[in-house]
Amino acid sequence: MRNIKLTIEYDGKDFNGWQKQPNKLNIQGELEKVIGEITGEEIDLIGSGRTDAGVHALGQVANFKTNSTMPVEKFPIAINSKIKKSIVIKKAEEVEDDFHSRYHCKRKTYRYIIDNNETPSAIYRHLLYYFPQKLDVEDMTKAAKYFEGEHDFKAFKASGTSSKSSVRTIYEANIFEENGRIIIELTGNGFLYNMVRIIAGTLLEVGLGKIKPEEILDIIKEGKREKAGKTLPPQGLYLVKVEYE
Amino acid sequence: MRNIKLTIEYDGKDFNGWQKQPNKLNIQGELEKVIGEITGEEIDLIGSGRTDAGVHALGQVANFKTNSTMPVEKFPIAINSKIKKSIVIKKAEEVEDDFHSRYHCKRKTYRYIIDNNETPSAIYRHLLYYFPQKLDVEDMTKAAKYFEGEHDFKAFKASGTSSKSSVRTIYEANIFEENGRIIIELTGNGFLYNMVRIIAGTLLEVGLGKIKPEEILDIIKEGKREKAGKTLPPQGLYLVKVEYE
Repeated sequence: MRNIKLTIEYDGKDFNGWQKQPNKLNIQGELEKVIGEITGEEIDLIGSGRTDAGVHALGQVANFKTNSTMPVEKFPIAINSKIKKSIVIKKAEEVEDDFHSRYHCKRKTYRYIIDNNETPSAIYRHLLYYFPQKLDVEDMTKAAKYFEGEHDFKAFKASGTSSKSSVRTIYEANIFEENGRIIIELTGNGFLYNMVRIIAGTLLEVGLGKIKPEEILDIIKEGKREKAGKTLPPQGLYLVKVEYE
Repeated sequence: MRNIKLTIEYDGKDFNGWQKQPNKLNIQGELEKVIGEITGEEIDLIGSGRTDAGVHALGQVANFKTNSTMPVEKFPIAINSKIKKSIVIKKAEEVEDDFHSRYHCKRKTYRYIIDNNETPSAIYRHLLYYFPQKLDVEDMTKAAKYFEGEHDFKAFKASGTSSKSSVRTIYEANIFEENGRIIIELTGNGFLYNMVRIIAGTLLEVGLGKIKPEEILDIIKEGKREKAGKTLPPQGLYLVKVEYE
């Protein structure tokens, strides 16, 4: 069988997240249905990971096996012409038989956008988290650097979630400011459940002066969820890219 | 009575345009209703001009008379808290009694965004006009310059519309490219019905090589609607700002 890797953009606000679940609109299920219609096969689409309801993706990656003989470059056109406009296949590639979107993922990049303008945006309201109280971007930038490196991030995962280990490496944590929007960008070898939204919430507390930049290391070391900031809402979060070797 | 000037952002996709009309959701009507509830008065809101269904605004201007004693800076908060999230008051100012949003307008700036990437965008699909065939931005930039100055733009207005004169002045016509998006920005003393969307459609023909940049002057001189390009769809159009003396 051929193994096809897809790069996918989607508008999170229209879905109950990536993962297939009965009676709730989800991205994985929509894609499996449409690819199934095109290939005449039952499709098992493996994503690089889930995204929650409301979370957007610019470059989610997923793969599926097929006996279809369709040229690989035709898949985006065929899928995009049948699927909801809130999902777009950006690229399709034929990959090695053993390629697995989740197991073989080396780096993921997420972006969280806080709209720190005085008034909210009408046009971009589903694409930003609006927070009007003025944030200190310089302190947030300093604080972000403390997240870089290999750490046990158990203070930064949703309570009640069980992963074998909560040790992850963040390769880069950067902050940009653009038109009054504060953009937090994190690249790591993997992220725990809600980890990016909790880091964003913690950086927001730094921006408010409630947490000092250098206190980030203590919060990481202590490992207590309640010492970190709130989980910010999903509409500000984007899965930007997923990298493999 | 006090005269209050509002600067307004709205997401055009949710409305049948600016203008009040029965049984169709419109921006003017929604604002009059909410401001009426706040002031307890019947409000007559005068916009700088209409925008069509699907057209967005970053800085539409409108004004209304009121006997309300509410401090002017409270109006945005009061209106934004009651109105649909797809409309946001960015600013409220108290102006001279004779200020009129439409009559006194000196300059308007519109933006039209063509998404010229290979695949459409899922996330920004309501905010761009997607056109995948590769456009020649250099030729489009040259062509845009021919629109500058005072001209009779009768070739660039929707047929069947009657305005006394179709002479308008375009002060600036610029083209930018950003992430595969072509941004057409026009500033003028006024625009005829559909004029920006027809100019954008004509520049698109230039980008395709069907019209040469220097032919723009002939099309203006001849004044025949059929020589200009198609009217591009509303979702790519933004009213960016409205200026007064």
